[in-house]
Amino acid sequence: MSRKLHLNLFVHGRGHHETAWRHPASTRRALTDIDYYRELARTAEKGLFDSLFLADALAVGDEVSHAAKGGLEPITTLAAVAGATERIGLIGTVSTTYTEPYNLARQFASLDHISHGRAGWNIVTSWVPGAGPNFGYDHQIEHGERYERAYDFLDAVTKLWDSWADDAVLDDREGGRYADTSRVKKINHAGPYHKVAGPLNVPRSPQGRPVYVQAGSSTAGRRFAAQYAEAVFTAHLEKATAVAFYADLKGQAVGLGRRADQILVLPGISAVIGSTEAEAKRLQRDLDELSDPKVGLERLSGRFGGHDFSHLDLDKVLTLADLPDPATVQTAQSRAHVIAALVEREKPTLRQLLHSLAGARGHFAMAGTPEQVADLIEDWFRSGAADGFNVMPPILPALLETFIDEVVPLLQKRGLFRTEYEADTLRGHYGLERPGSQFFDAPEAHAPAA
Amino acid sequence: MSRKLHLNLFVHGRGHHETAWRHPASTRRALTDIDYYRELARTAEKGLFDSLFLADALAVGDEVSHAAKGGLEPITTLAAVAGATERIGLIGTVSTTYTEPYNLARQFASLDHISHGRAGWNIVTSWVPGAGPNFGYDHQIEHGERYERAYDFLDAVTKLWDSWADDAVLDDREGGRYADTSRVKKINHAGPYHKVAGPLNVPRSPQGRPVYVQAGSSTAGRRFAAQYAEAVFTAHLEKATAVAFYADLKGQAVGLGRRADQILVLPGISAVIGSTEAEAKRLQRDLDELSDPKVGLERLSGRFGGHDFSHLDLDKVLTLADLPDPATVQTAQSRAHVIAALVEREKPTLRQLLHSLAGARGHFAMAGTPEQVADLIEDWFRSGAADGFNVMPPILPALLETFIDEVVPLLQKRGLFRTEYEADTLRGHYGLERPGSQFFDAPEAHAPAA
Repeated sequence: MSRKLHLNLFVHGRGHHETAWRHPASTRRALTDIDYYRELARTAEKGLFDSLFLADALAVGDEVSHAAKGGLEPITTLAAVAGATERIGLIGTVSTTYTEPYNLARQFASLDHISHGRAGWNIVTSWVPGAGPNFGYDHQIEHGERYERAYDFLDAVTKLWDSWADDAVLDDREGGRYADTSRVKKINHAGPYHKVAGPLNVPRSPQGRPVYVQAGSSTAGRRFAAQYAEAVFTAHLEKATAVAFYADLKGQAVGLGRRADQILVLPGISAVIGSTEAEAKRLQRDLDELSDPKVGLERLSGRFGGHDFSHLDLDKVLTLADLPDPATVQTAQSRAHVIAALVEREKPTLRQLLHSLAGARGHFAMAGTPEQVADLIEDWFRSGAADGFNVMPPILPALLETFIDEVVPLLQKRGLFRTEYEADTLRGHYGLERPGSQFFDAPEAHAPAA
Repeated sequence: MSRKLHLNLFVHGRGHHETAWRHPASTRRALTDIDYYRELARTAEKGLFDSLFLADALAVGDEVSHAAKGGLEPITTLAAVAGATERIGLIGTVSTTYTEPYNLARQFASLDHISHGRAGWNIVTSWVPGAGPNFGYDHQIEHGERYERAYDFLDAVTKLWDSWADDAVLDDREGGRYADTSRVKKINHAGPYHKVAGPLNVPRSPQGRPVYVQAGSSTAGRRFAAQYAEAVFTAHLEKATAVAFYADLKGQAVGLGRRADQILVLPGISAVIGSTEAEAKRLQRDLDELSDPKVGLERLSGRFGGHDFSHLDLDKVLTLADLPDPATVQTAQSRAHVIAALVEREKPTLRQLLHSLAGARGHFAMAGTPEQVADLIEDWFRSGAADGFNVMPPILPALLETFIDEVVPLLQKRGLFRTEYEADTLRGHYGLERPGSQFFDAPEAHAPAA
């Protein structure tokens, strides 16, 4: 069987372009309307997508005056979406910094049971500066410590998910034996940040545990992904950096004793699609023209730890001297590096930079025909830049529907994408092995390396 | 309109009798099968119940060898059940001791949006001794401190739910204004245990906030309920204590400036129902005979903070001297008091006590005809013991179906229970006012007293 690519729908507001919520083609539904998410999921499932993914931020601030923010929490949303779908994977973002391991472990185990094996966890350490003060901290916890906590957290929750053997529940009505307690283990995890006795209060779920997804791309983020992630969402503005990232990440994973095909790399792609290139560019222009430089400046500032760019002329050609050093940024470092690289490479005006980032916040954005989009996907897929894509429609649901109606058939015709689902679980769609329990199964069954 | 009673379905394993999981009439579904909960909810909705309720425990131990424990987490379950139902209220248990206020607030706000105004929160401080060690504590946090934390927690989450005015989201596409930030408030809560900056990242939900439900009945628990609870689940083995509890709780609430009809008292009732009394008693005997004294002794021990009763002869007539002083119990004190009162009143043998508690763990249990059950409900309802009942079928779904098919019509015929839903939200079913926001609405709109 030839290698097939994987497609994930990244759900974000009314679309990934920052002005999508105002555009006439975007949904009329409120961001708190569960039917919006159910419909998107069904559409993506009709398009045979592997999965959909909900991002998250643990704070909102004054940007809600002009940005569509504040919606439903991911886990509750996915539990509700599970009942409206049958096959598509359901990936939710939850923070390792601001959640109790026991609570997270049981909610994901429950979601995996509820969805019959379709749960994925996007592991984040929460870079949004406002998060700390919502959880009792005076400031954001700094980048390095967030990752140290994350390792301890992953160790703890993996043990919790492994604490029931697959065959622990006997349910022997005649004999009066409900579970075999020799197959349920107290984990007694005592790490630097987390102490958890266990066992979990949920029996082992269909996938063993949720698929581990990660999107941090800083040095620390990659090291973490190489150890734990089974799928990685990543942002690139050009193929060259995507190829380098792909090789680096797979190399690190293999160096840790993992198989390269057990860690999928899915760069973001945000495509404005038109039946002609001119039509696509027109739609792109419509979106850009709705954008407010104030919104873009705030977002850029957020990407650089609150640095103030508002004194710069919008038509000034930028240089690296206009940006703080990305290595000093305590938020999402990798995104700051991507933006610095773009400034160095393309020398845009501030206004041009803001337009580039309005499209997809540092992910690859394009405007073109279905053929052009399919060509790019095929090129990246065949040249070692991607195992598939994190599809980020600029307008939802309109440009998701166009992608499914116009791009997916081209990918299928080229033999790059499935023509029907061949599995029932997210691990099945992604071609990932079901991990064994570290306590009850043979060591070689413990993928990933953890 | 005459006063109507309220019915809540308390979902518990395969039924409330400890041997239900083994009984041939109980469901064949696994406790991790979401369809089991969807079907129960639809059945209860067919029976026009106000609500259903999922209890919770933050630990499991060796009792799983002979007791059906370890299932799905309540919030994810209710989010999934919401889509399978339209009217019934959905009440989930979440702990104030072991959850971050911000996480709890947004999950319940999301559940209230997802269910279109049917969410209720059963507020618990988590008495199960194993909980602490699953959350980084060496021991269970003691009873008094758990309640101090709970007050601070309620203060914080109520502010979070009040942090968006109902009209904060403008969604003005033309003008580019998404929200009116003068109607979204940073709460800056700084209490003895919790610091939360806010605002919540979810706009205000249909009910303003979930219905506050409580089940603690100790002195501290009642004081807490009198201040915050809008519905109270309570355990009584006889009408007299239920009447006293009802009067005391309503009196305390009125003393705090609240209206007596804004705090509902719902005692538990666990009824084995047969078409004749003999048939009911036979079914009761079948259930009791499946019971294992070891299971009962463990549960009794758990009710008394781990006290060991195993040296006592099962046929010994008990006296108060055989029990630890309930006032010293750090778990759920009120339940220990109920058991002590039963021992004093009825002087049972240890075996008889275990059988009494096997039925419904200290709640009122009976075996009788539909008429006898309806008579008891009417009597308690009319004599100031109850505003309705927490219905605890000994076998699920069988004895829920019998209750709906046989008892509900009698209650309707007597004019005690609705013949169709008259509201769409849990507040509507319960006759509770929708609270205003403490930040954005007039003070008289802030029910309850909080």
